[in-house]
Amino acid sequence: MKYDVDQYYEAVLGITREAGEIIKDGIARTKNVNTKLGSWDLVTQYDKWVEEVLVTRISEKFPSHKFIAEETNSEQKTTPVLTSEPTWIIDPIDGTTNFVHGFHHTCISIALSIEQEVVIGIVYNPILDQMFTAIKGHGAYLNNRVIQTSNVDELGKSLVYLESSFACIPSLRDTIMKRTEACITAAHGIRVLGSAALALCHVAMGVAEAYHIDGLQCWDVAAGALIVTEAGGIVMDSTGMFSKDLTSFYKWSYNLCGISNKYS
Amino acid sequence: MKYDVDQYYEAVLGITREAGEIIKDGIARTKNVNTKLGSWDLVTQYDKWVEEVLVTRISEKFPSHKFIAEETNSEQKTTPVLTSEPTWIIDPIDGTTNFVHGFHHTCISIALSIEQEVVIGIVYNPILDQMFTAIKGHGAYLNNRVIQTSNVDELGKSLVYLESSFACIPSLRDTIMKRTEACITAAHGIRVLGSAALALCHVAMGVAEAYHIDGLQCWDVAAGALIVTEAGGIVMDSTGMFSKDLTSFYKWSYNLCGISNKYS
Repeated sequence: MKYDVDQYYEAVLGITREAGEIIKDGIARTKNVNTKLGSWDLVTQYDKWVEEVLVTRISEKFPSHKFIAEETNSEQKTTPVLTSEPTWIIDPIDGTTNFVHGFHHTCISIALSIEQEVVIGIVYNPILDQMFTAIKGHGAYLNNRVIQTSNVDELGKSLVYLESSFACIPSLRDTIMKRTEACITAAHGIRVLGSAALALCHVAMGVAEAYHIDGLQCWDVAAGALIVTEAGGIVMDSTGMFSKDLTSFYKWSYNLCGISNKYS
Repeated sequence: MKYDVDQYYEAVLGITREAGEIIKDGIARTKNVNTKLGSWDLVTQYDKWVEEVLVTRISEKFPSHKFIAEETNSEQKTTPVLTSEPTWIIDPIDGTTNFVHGFHHTCISIALSIEQEVVIGIVYNPILDQMFTAIKGHGAYLNNRVIQTSNVDELGKSLVYLESSFACIPSLRDTIMKRTEACITAAHGIRVLGSAALALCHVAMGVAEAYHIDGLQCWDVAAGALIVTEAGGIVMDSTGMFSKDLTSFYKWSYNLCGISNKYS
């Protein structure tokens, strides 16, 4: 086989755990901090630090691999280009608002794309030591235990995760507030937790039946989307396009739902 | 001293940990369960079971103590009467929707009122092994480490916790949705997590700057409110009444905010 996915997975799992220590150490320091830096500058520092550790350590192991990573691409204001080469898609800290407030719901999200298909997904919450993993075709796991999407098939019995942050953009506010109201009325409950990667993992492990978000970026969801599909769920964008075409993640600012397969 | 609060605290801390094992065991069983009982019936069973263990074990230790507890009072449809006697105010499972969905954000809430004043507050999340505690006048703790409310004093930098479930009641919907929209627009972020007791603890530990909920009951907040005030925060109802008069918790269906003292 041209690509040794298992080898990549094992190596990067260890590197992700190491990088998680930085977040674990940092979450206690970002708030109420006496520093010339504001807390957001400090977050950016942690974001960069975690990304640098991940990219450097992976490059040492696999020098030919490419990267699409939040800090690098955001800083360069470049639209990431996905080639067929092995490419690690990295969000060093997903749930940055939670991170800065010291809320334990934050994680590293890291995925490997080969020939424009995501084959490895790792989402790691170092604070709660929750390691969500998937290798394409081999199921989804939380701390090495198989996870599956929910078998609940009624919206009225479903827990639906949403994000609200884009409602602060006036042009999106009405749509998001109406959707939120509709979900509150129809679902068993809604939750707003502030991490796209972990929300997808909660769909994968059957805690939530569905998750909806606007305006995300590929590094927010590449890993979580594989974990959802490997757990038996479905990922689609707002056009109803299913997750077979994961390259759609490279479009910016679109809607995504991770849902249990019972809704299909 | 007529009442040995430290002795009550130590004894009930141990009993709470024991009862937590039932929740820990139960959370894996409530969802996707093959049983003649629906999942809600099963939750009610767990609620009753935890409450029974708490009430029985506390009664064995302190036979003269009274109880106001969710399951007993809801079943009897009685409005709880608070006397001056030592009274344990118990919510056996706060965050029941989370519990039934297997979401780890769920807890036991237990408070002791003496002479109509809450003197002990214990909120225990057995899934994450987070024990929040306060004895009146002696500070607030998470797993024996002192916690304090946030020192953030701008709403734009604040994380605000809300609950949305009452928006499914048509007469309350508009008010709740407008408040939600206002918070999304003005705050750094909002979170909806589905447990009043834990939300108050997140205010107490400085993760959230404020929490707002409608229509709660005394057992949802008695413990958490003491933990907030002992951590330096403020608890008030919708009239702006502060937490000095904790007997106001025995009014049903009112609003509560737990906020950091920086907003005072």
